[in-house]
Amino acid sequence: MKYCSTCGATVSHRVPEGDRLARFVCDQCGEIHYINPKLVVGTIPVWQERILLCRRAIEPQLGFWTLPAGFMEMAESTAEAARRETREEACAHVRLVGLFSMVNIPHISQVHLFYRAEMDDASFAPGDETLETRLFALEEIPWDELAFRSVSLTLRLFLEDRERSHYGFHEATLAPK
Amino acid sequence: MKYCSTCGATVSHRVPEGDRLARFVCDQCGEIHYINPKLVVGTIPVWQERILLCRRAIEPQLGFWTLPAGFMEMAESTAEAARRETREEACAHVRLVGLFSMVNIPHISQVHLFYRAEMDDASFAPGDETLETRLFALEEIPWDELAFRSVSLTLRLFLEDRERSHYGFHEATLAPK
Repeated sequence: MKYCSTCGATVSHRVPEGDRLARFVCDQCGEIHYINPKLVVGTIPVWQERILLCRRAIEPQLGFWTLPAGFMEMAESTAEAARRETREEACAHVRLVGLFSMVNIPHISQVHLFYRAEMDDASFAPGDETLETRLFALEEIPWDELAFRSVSLTLRLFLEDRERSHYGFHEATLAPK
Repeated sequence: MKYCSTCGATVSHRVPEGDRLARFVCDQCGEIHYINPKLVVGTIPVWQERILLCRRAIEPQLGFWTLPAGFMEMAESTAEAARRETREEACAHVRLVGLFSMVNIPHISQVHLFYRAEMDDASFAPGDETLETRLFALEEIPWDELAFRSVSLTLRLFLEDRERSHYGFHEATLAPK
């Protein structure tokens, strides 16, 4: 950030009075511009014991497999974001079962949420940002071709919970590689 | 947003190519400025069956009681944010037990998270943004003087779970009043 988005003047990076962290503060109108972590929300869509994955058509990780997920938008809930991303990326309609994982990634200031989800039917197709969508039996999951660590962690926890027939809620934090 | 924070030129509010929502797009450098929901993170600090509440020294809801909570900062995890806010607002040190509630408030684009927390000892004091800190027995909670609906909902769910001696994870969405 170099310029104030409200008045167009330059900003300084300094600790405002009464604060403890440096912020971008406008040199002219004094507005403080806060920047906060972002939520990425998605689902684990299940149809008859198989999981729907999407092969990414965009960077980062183009060509790798992921669970449908994306940045939460203004004025929606986490559940709405999860269902929307599943529709947009995999053209699949789901019923959410419950929040399954919350993966903190502090070094990129993101929090990833994944919901367990039951697909309404067997229909799915690649959305605009997806090359290919496919249902994977649990033993077919392409572990070496997964796009993100939050996805591989979530899938691993999902398989572990399935093994003991009890699905919990999982919180984890990923450090830089 | 009226000006591009990267180059200082004016921005337009329009749907970028390949997108489905209107964004602030720079008329000069073309940068797309995404705005996303914010996370507010806090704790339910417990000491010997009593809950620590903070009376707010700042707007909004100055003078009303709240659980220690605040906006998550860049480069921290949700757990770190929860402990930090508890230190800053109530000068209390806690051990987190687990995530208890996630309250979506889509009309203000916020997601509130509250962790169950055990206080390390009985020491607490008002922080800079707090008028007064006090331990409340469950029957003493000042329901009519609570600052936010996410706080009253979380406390109500906490009391219900305590009643049946089983604490779960709760997700809720608040509509405008």
